[in-house]
Amino acid sequence: MELFGLKVFTLGGFGEIRAGDDLAELVAEAAQSRLLDGDIVAVTSKIVSKAEGRTVASADREQAITDETVRVVASRAHPGGLTRIVENRQGLVMAAAGVDTSNAPDGVVLLLPLDPDASARALCAALRERTGLRLGVLVTDTAGRPWREGQTDIAIGAAGLAVLDDLRGTPDASGRRLEVTVAAVADEIAGAADLVKGKTSGNPVAVVRGLGRLVGDLDAVGARALQRPSDTDMFRLGTAEARAEGYAEGYAAGRAAKGEV
Amino acid sequence: MELFGLKVFTLGGFGEIRAGDDLAELVAEAAQSRLLDGDIVAVTSKIVSKAEGRTVASADREQAITDETVRVVASRAHPGGLTRIVENRQGLVMAAAGVDTSNAPDGVVLLLPLDPDASARALCAALRERTGLRLGVLVTDTAGRPWREGQTDIAIGAAGLAVLDDLRGTPDASGRRLEVTVAAVADEIAGAADLVKGKTSGNPVAVVRGLGRLVGDLDAVGARALQRPSDTDMFRLGTAEARAEGYAEGYAAGRAAKGEV
Repeated sequence: MELFGLKVFTLGGFGEIRAGDDLAELVAEAAQSRLLDGDIVAVTSKIVSKAEGRTVASADREQAITDETVRVVASRAHPGGLTRIVENRQGLVMAAAGVDTSNAPDGVVLLLPLDPDASARALCAALRERTGLRLGVLVTDTAGRPWREGQTDIAIGAAGLAVLDDLRGTPDASGRRLEVTVAAVADEIAGAADLVKGKTSGNPVAVVRGLGRLVGDLDAVGARALQRPSDTDMFRLGTAEARAEGYAEGYAAGRAAKGEV
Repeated sequence: MELFGLKVFTLGGFGEIRAGDDLAELVAEAAQSRLLDGDIVAVTSKIVSKAEGRTVASADREQAITDETVRVVASRAHPGGLTRIVENRQGLVMAAAGVDTSNAPDGVVLLLPLDPDASARALCAALRERTGLRLGVLVTDTAGRPWREGQTDIAIGAAGLAVLDDLRGTPDASGRRLEVTVAAVADEIAGAADLVKGKTSGNPVAVVRGLGRLVGDLDAVGARALQRPSDTDMFRLGTAEARAEGYAEGYAAGRAAKGEV
């Protein structure tokens, strides 16, 4: 059963993370001897941000969102204020650019790690050296998505494992070639880790066991490979924003055509 | 460790499913005595479609997609043909309306179950009666998403478990109220199940253990609760489609304004 099985468990035993903390040391201590070769360590981005000192004063939240924004994808006013869905400097499309006050120390908001793939690579390298094990590391965060209610955790940083499982060309159960199927396994792993970590449990790290087939070179392509470039994204803008752009163009063209019969 | 742990494993032992097959009987036989109270049984939609005879001739694929479509969300021509992302009769936004040839018998394509929540409820009721266990059932399918590369499995049908874990108002690790956080746990469970089922392994059923807290009444709200109504969806249309709508409106308005100075 274990052969086809997956096991996900939290390490626990983490206190409040402070800027400068050595995450590899803390994870290794929390894991003690529980890590095995091929394990994937999923770390909530919040503790990476805290260790990297990626915080700003809560009062500067709106400015911080602006500063983290590369491109506004959609925005909507609501009683609570303005929701901005943007592409952030990490290349992720997220509400509020991923700036978050949940699980943040009093008076500050957390920004996402500057380079989550680099954070994952550093942690993975340090954990591999400490343990001598072939491990993978994911940095995870919670994100909403179009068309579906609720949020799921996704992989915003990755090191030492394949983030996409390209099944194109492989035969399906009936021997036929699969249609376009590239499984975003790193996002599915992040979601599985969230199911045990939760948002409130104070369990920022989960171990996912049973996917050693995905674990490989430390310099495997990171989670950035999961980001669809906006120029190939059929949903690069919100519906209202795209309609407004089209309307302005159309109006100008209609006015310009006024001379025609 | 198991206390905070999750275990996911496949049942295996499934042959080709045919129209009229009793899925509850097949799952119960494959599971033997391996199911426990609180387990969630994740079933790939393909075997539900097969058991329900939801197939059409491959030659009629394009027409089938049209028939399954309630609303075209976006479409794009490419060398292989036309990709249509639509809202289908199940209320799901999916490429090709979820019509799929992978893992389908020769000469036919599979349509999604007509009412995946009803399919899940029937299977869940039958499995609970056979086993006497408090079980949850998910019907899963593979879907793409905006902004992210690759596909993940999502829950298109659900019975006997909470599909959304509403954490709003609960205190976070630092005692502060969490911001808007409603975890789409059913989608995260579907993704975890996909990690062990795979697309080609001939393992259409996975058991997810350790989330008994989510398992409850048979008539709990189904996976339809995970569907965001299009009128509240900021991404209800593709960018190109929304721009074209806006352009046409703007052009007409510009022409109408030709009388003005």
